[in-house]
Amino acid sequence: MIKSIVGTNDFIEFLRGKSATFLLAVSNTKTADIEGITQAGIPGKIYLTPTLDSEFLTCGEVRSLESIAETPKGVPTPALLTRAAHLLKPFSNIEILNLGLQVAPKVDYFKTHNFSISASGDISSLANIDAMDVFKKGLDFGQNFECKDDYIILAESVPSGTTTAAATALALDYDCKEMFSSSFKDVPNDIRNKTIQSALSSIKESDDIFSRLSKVSDNMLIFTAGFILGLNNQSKVILAGGTQMACALLIVNSILKQMQGHLETSNLALCTTKWVYEDEKSDIEGLLKLNDLKINAYYADFDFKESSNGALKLYDEGEAKEGVGAGASLAYALLNGISKKELTKKIESLLG
Amino acid sequence: MIKSIVGTNDFIEFLRGKSATFLLAVSNTKTADIEGITQAGIPGKIYLTPTLDSEFLTCGEVRSLESIAETPKGVPTPALLTRAAHLLKPFSNIEILNLGLQVAPKVDYFKTHNFSISASGDISSLANIDAMDVFKKGLDFGQNFECKDDYIILAESVPSGTTTAAATALALDYDCKEMFSSSFKDVPNDIRNKTIQSALSSIKESDDIFSRLSKVSDNMLIFTAGFILGLNNQSKVILAGGTQMACALLIVNSILKQMQGHLETSNLALCTTKWVYEDEKSDIEGLLKLNDLKINAYYADFDFKESSNGALKLYDEGEAKEGVGAGASLAYALLNGISKKELTKKIESLLG
Repeated sequence: MIKSIVGTNDFIEFLRGKSATFLLAVSNTKTADIEGITQAGIPGKIYLTPTLDSEFLTCGEVRSLESIAETPKGVPTPALLTRAAHLLKPFSNIEILNLGLQVAPKVDYFKTHNFSISASGDISSLANIDAMDVFKKGLDFGQNFECKDDYIILAESVPSGTTTAAATALALDYDCKEMFSSSFKDVPNDIRNKTIQSALSSIKESDDIFSRLSKVSDNMLIFTAGFILGLNNQSKVILAGGTQMACALLIVNSILKQMQGHLETSNLALCTTKWVYEDEKSDIEGLLKLNDLKINAYYADFDFKESSNGALKLYDEGEAKEGVGAGASLAYALLNGISKKELTKKIESLLG
Repeated sequence: MIKSIVGTNDFIEFLRGKSATFLLAVSNTKTADIEGITQAGIPGKIYLTPTLDSEFLTCGEVRSLESIAETPKGVPTPALLTRAAHLLKPFSNIEILNLGLQVAPKVDYFKTHNFSISASGDISSLANIDAMDVFKKGLDFGQNFECKDDYIILAESVPSGTTTAAATALALDYDCKEMFSSSFKDVPNDIRNKTIQSALSSIKESDDIFSRLSKVSDNMLIFTAGFILGLNNQSKVILAGGTQMACALLIVNSILKQMQGHLETSNLALCTTKWVYEDEKSDIEGLLKLNDLKINAYYADFDFKESSNGALKLYDEGEAKEGVGAGASLAYALLNGISKKELTKKIESLLG
């Protein structure tokens, strides 16, 4: 039920029945305000999506808006999938990493880490991130994070994050054009490419890694790269996402190369959805293979074939695809004895 | 599946997937010997109910009597519901607090705390409790209790405990007539009211809180009030019960008021059954709102609609309602991915 993209299945099989801490890294980039660039939320209120995802995942309700985030076509947020997994087989612990939200989630009790990071700018002008500061905060958090469970699932909710990820990997000179996913089935390539081109035009050859990240990246990517290096293979961690998480790994790779450093990666893996894996318009496997680091990568073999719900069926057609750790959460449920049928029913029940 | 009575759902959502220590506070009050005042047990042997509940919850069998406690109408003890939850999703730890049993449960291995407290008297004459002693024992236990799990579920089994709770809250001058629940659907108000009136007639205006408790309360209520103050918000605790637990909170409130003290209550909540919440003859919400302390309170949205068992259906008609932490135990199971259907089946299977 969980299949390998790269590497062997030993790592993920070892996690069968194990307990997990779920970390949700959330941030805003003004890139998401570009009209038509993402369908991860309500037009004009895209910036609220990570806030609402945080509320819905932890407490089962959206509090900073009346109704749960839906895209214009009515593709429900992947937070539904993650929440369903949590209802059927609860994560032992959920914590929120606020990496620059415009609106803080209205949630009590659940630990929320505030890193005093601001929402980043639109990359088509300048993201304007203090990349070294964000990176160091990730590094520090990773070095000091004490996981009380068997492993960490690190998920993200960053609207237009695939666009900033594509710009980031290209700015770091990876040959990865066309390799990045999108929340759209029919990717609005004009807007997207224009944004990325505009972002890349700000890069000078003399810019070092952190200057480049400052201009075209987003907080989640930079923080995650720091977090991975800070953890330094001391805890098992699943990067819960698709091409964005693959980009964070490319940042790690670039930094290590520059520092001529080495990182053990036996405790590091990536897990995404089948929709990302099968997407013909992106190439998660290609992105992982551009990396010098060997990372086990997986996808949850889950789709909505057993559902007759039209909104969910859109996932099978290639809309939304991933987010809020949906792929790793489905894998977590499957690894704990929950069936595809149970997951399908629970997700349907959340749509009401 | 778990709904709020008072407050928000963040506290209970935070406990999703978390581990719990189950403490069962058991005691006898001779009030239960008044004919017809309770249906929590076998007539003439009502005093055995908390003993049998302790045995059945921990070991799955009653040892101090031939068959599991049944009321004349055949309403099975709510210990069945708690045991079913424990079978489907075991509590990490169960301990028994013997707060004055006439017959000690025949149970090995499970930690039983003996506090050298005697069964209390019939409140229609005098309960005759050393209230300060019982309170201090609760306080001390709370101060020193080390919870190895994420939270504590504190449950009770005290036959005729709703009658002593009503008398207690009235004796402390709360305006709560008609707010207390009963194990009966058709409450035997004559007997009950006569008992309460008789109890209250012993109270003099000059009596302080502890004198009043000594006369009309029961050991569980007084101990629990001490326990809550002793814990002092240092561990998360769910008071597993309905109007009796609400009464324990009113005792805490009265003591704090008199001492002009303050108590943080962010880690304190109450959880009961849907039958108590929906009971038209009592008012759990009203009781909680009489309290100056803000306490999150919930009920498990569970009933026997999915069962065809006649004995269990009596719960839906309003018999029994709560006890042995049934509401919080159902919530605990639901919070750990157990479905209503699984619970129903397991409870049915326990009836044989």
